[in-house]
Amino acid sequence: MKLLDGKLIADQIKTEIAAEVKERFLDQGLEPPHVAAVLVGEDPASLTYVAAKEKACREVGFISSVYRYPSNITQEKLLEVVDFLNADQEIDGFIVQLPLPAHIDEHKIIERINPVKDIDGFHPVNIGKMALNLPCFLPATPMGILTLLDRYQIETAGKNIVVLGRSHIVGTPVSILLSRKSDRGNATVTLCHSYSQDIPAIASRADILVVAMGKEGFVTADMVKQDAVVVDVGVHRVPSSETKSGFRLKGDVDFEIVSRKCSYITPVPGGVGPMTIVSLLQNTLKAAKKEVS
Amino acid sequence: MKLLDGKLIADQIKTEIAAEVKERFLDQGLEPPHVAAVLVGEDPASLTYVAAKEKACREVGFISSVYRYPSNITQEKLLEVVDFLNADQEIDGFIVQLPLPAHIDEHKIIERINPVKDIDGFHPVNIGKMALNLPCFLPATPMGILTLLDRYQIETAGKNIVVLGRSHIVGTPVSILLSRKSDRGNATVTLCHSYSQDIPAIASRADILVVAMGKEGFVTADMVKQDAVVVDVGVHRVPSSETKSGFRLKGDVDFEIVSRKCSYITPVPGGVGPMTIVSLLQNTLKAAKKEVS
Repeated sequence: MKLLDGKLIADQIKTEIAAEVKERFLDQGLEPPHVAAVLVGEDPASLTYVAAKEKACREVGFISSVYRYPSNITQEKLLEVVDFLNADQEIDGFIVQLPLPAHIDEHKIIERINPVKDIDGFHPVNIGKMALNLPCFLPATPMGILTLLDRYQIETAGKNIVVLGRSHIVGTPVSILLSRKSDRGNATVTLCHSYSQDIPAIASRADILVVAMGKEGFVTADMVKQDAVVVDVGVHRVPSSETKSGFRLKGDVDFEIVSRKCSYITPVPGGVGPMTIVSLLQNTLKAAKKEVS
Repeated sequence: MKLLDGKLIADQIKTEIAAEVKERFLDQGLEPPHVAAVLVGEDPASLTYVAAKEKACREVGFISSVYRYPSNITQEKLLEVVDFLNADQEIDGFIVQLPLPAHIDEHKIIERINPVKDIDGFHPVNIGKMALNLPCFLPATPMGILTLLDRYQIETAGKNIVVLGRSHIVGTPVSILLSRKSDRGNATVTLCHSYSQDIPAIASRADILVVAMGKEGFVTADMVKQDAVVVDVGVHRVPSSETKSGFRLKGDVDFEIVSRKCSYITPVPGGVGPMTIVSLLQNTLKAAKKEVS
């Protein structure tokens, strides 16, 4: 078994991006790419995630701004914030961190983002272009998974890939991407979810198994084919007496036992997580280079 | 074996639409829904298809206009036509019949259509909303397949569905639709294509098999599970000594032998074809009722 070391690959890509920022922007006397995040409320996971994004942006030389608002901001006001960022010529791309408070219609906010600044790739027009294999911003986690497989030279063409979980931000788009006619796709993809019958039988036929169920330790050895590639998107905090913090992170896959059976596996943490953030950096660079119209 | 009689269901739906046109528009003194088609060149299949659409529109009481242009129309001029139809308040929805001549970028034309008038459901924003389970226009053939299964009360939830073929207008969107969290979805869908290995083994696990390969007679009995439901999207003209025209229509499925093994099957012609046209009528009605924003 080999680890699909997302941390390592993300660091390599960050080094590449930093070099490009220097060469293509700073050395030409241009402002570096500028990314903004809109953060509403005090959701702890969102705070952590936005902080990690900011840190990554600084590491590669981007300018990073965070616009923070209280959780009682009105939808109308938040739409104005989006309009402001759409219009601001200095900002190449931005994200609105989800989830938003219940009184705000997330779709309304996302659809207001100018698609050419939608570095999260959540706007319907970007999702549609993704399905149609047109130039667009890909959603960060699916994109990170494809990049990780690509950097480890794991072939997807003609492979049987099973995706567990059909969320709008991971399972559904990654299943579309992997089955597209493209050099990181061309797989035969089966998408499973809560209605699927006999998931163990389906999963155990997979050459590559992508797990994004949100259920800690869901995937056990009997669900994994010998020498399969396993990509674990889940992140769960579980209590632990072995760490100072009193908890540790675990995935949707029972790593201990599954790792003995597969050829490659992503660790949690250090697998898909760092790839998600680095994908956002890649999208920002793409936005700054005006590669998506 | 029972036939999934698309002609019969399409006629029922047309009767329903005609009643709604009368009640909701004519009896209120309103103009009936108005649909337009843009037809470039003389492609025989396109001429046939647009004529069939016009006939169906008249049957349900819609107003139907066809805008015809020679195949040497410039892209710029065609974009102006789209702008004109976008702006024309009298036209509720329109299609640009594909394929377009090689010198015109189809994506540019499709993306110029106002999504609220995109009754073909081909605009990226409609495809994206489809994937995100948001209100939108669904592409006509996938929508017709779902309606047909629904009218025959064929359950999709929890079923294993295999889709053969990943075209942008049939295979890819129908695979997305059938796996969505919705009462016509919730299936475990596997999408196969030219890179897929051992299609017969995969197809023969399907409870419902949707075939949109574009290969005449591709699906034989060994690829179909006993009592499966088979939906055949293919249409091919083959020479025949038994018909006056000298040809007959056949599908991607070897109907003679497969029909003996399955529980339900669509005939060709008279299966998916009429459902495609009736879906376009349903989308037009939806546009006229301003149900998609």
